[in-house]
Amino acid sequence: MTELVLVRHGESTANRDNTYTGWSDVPLTAAGIAQAHDAGQRLRATGIQFGAVHTSVLQRAIVTANIMLDEIDQLWLPEYKTWRLNERHYGALRGQNKDATRQEYGKQQVQQWRRSFYTVPPLLAPDELDHDRRYTKYGAAVEPRGESLKMAYDRIMPYWIDQIAPRLLDGHNQLVVAHGSTLRALIKYLEQISDTGIDGVEVANGVPICYHLDQQLNVIGKDEY
Amino acid sequence: MTELVLVRHGESTANRDNTYTGWSDVPLTAAGIAQAHDAGQRLRATGIQFGAVHTSVLQRAIVTANIMLDEIDQLWLPEYKTWRLNERHYGALRGQNKDATRQEYGKQQVQQWRRSFYTVPPLLAPDELDHDRRYTKYGAAVEPRGESLKMAYDRIMPYWIDQIAPRLLDGHNQLVVAHGSTLRALIKYLEQISDTGIDGVEVANGVPICYHLDQQLNVIGKDEY
Repeated sequence: MTELVLVRHGESTANRDNTYTGWSDVPLTAAGIAQAHDAGQRLRATGIQFGAVHTSVLQRAIVTANIMLDEIDQLWLPEYKTWRLNERHYGALRGQNKDATRQEYGKQQVQQWRRSFYTVPPLLAPDELDHDRRYTKYGAAVEPRGESLKMAYDRIMPYWIDQIAPRLLDGHNQLVVAHGSTLRALIKYLEQISDTGIDGVEVANGVPICYHLDQQLNVIGKDEY
Repeated sequence: MTELVLVRHGESTANRDNTYTGWSDVPLTAAGIAQAHDAGQRLRATGIQFGAVHTSVLQRAIVTANIMLDEIDQLWLPEYKTWRLNERHYGALRGQNKDATRQEYGKQQVQQWRRSFYTVPPLLAPDELDHDRRYTKYGAAVEPRGESLKMAYDRIMPYWIDQIAPRLLDGHNQLVVAHGSTLRALIKYLEQISDTGIDGVEVANGVPICYHLDQQLNVIGKDEY
């Protein structure tokens, strides 16, 4: 049996302010830092020894991962940071308050933007892209102008297939510290949830979700700490 | 011109207590954490944009690196952790107080153990090895029973050749956060210091040393921040 642990980062300033974030690189709040320490301590109690940790290139996930590695006394683990685990890109919604968009566009539209699998948010204009070198080093095609959960799913899966699954198949437990939508995509895949069923799945900040996997990476059990 | 920045970790509990450490995985002191923040802020002022950071598998170097990456706002950088950048292994001297060994073995012997290129410290007995999985995953040959600076130099250079130098040759600035002896070995190589000349070289905690390198990686300048 191999263990895959998924953790959403601790509370960020955007979570606190109830705004859409996506690829905006916002820090953790003091409460978020405390959540990361708590998550690490609960994970430590399981005694799980990992082979590697995977995270996004966004500081709220990286800092959460580093705090947790310290708490589980496995700071020396290989740590892989990839844009493929970044939060879903919220396009032109980024920085906007969720309640304000509910008032402007209606509850139903906002629920669709936030939870449905196929709905694409309003896109950034081409000249609104950040051209951050953490993305441009892979070429212009990487930075999206906005993503549906399906689009995020499709760019996460190559990383799962190439980097996470082979390590699990080799028998090494893996820790993934990422984002609400990234983790919803992985959970959809792992639990074989339908395109409509995924609407109801939410992932809390700083709660390690541990999947027990068999030798073909089928889920044979699940615990939350 | 490409920039190579070397930084020794902030003060560790062993630095504070004046004991030999080597591969023992001791934490930073509060003063050491403050040194790491200061080093990061001074590095930030240079505006250097890095391609990657390299560190050891010891927490005093990793935590220093993470704090510095946060201060320079480049947490997303690829971070490579390798036993090849570990501090020189102090063998049976680890955990012993430096003043106590001076009293027991004499000033000259201790100076040789600490600073000469070829002197090997008293070795650990085979049954005193830690068998830590961060080393055993590479096979039994990795964990030494004690190292001269020459032995540390010889295991560091493959990492320099395979992982650091090619990235510099590609024009990407590199940050190395490591240990006193590891950095003395790299400095010996970069500045072409003789086997006896290296005796006089010391590296302070938390002071970034920036080498300006030409296209063949010859040193054409050096700054300390």
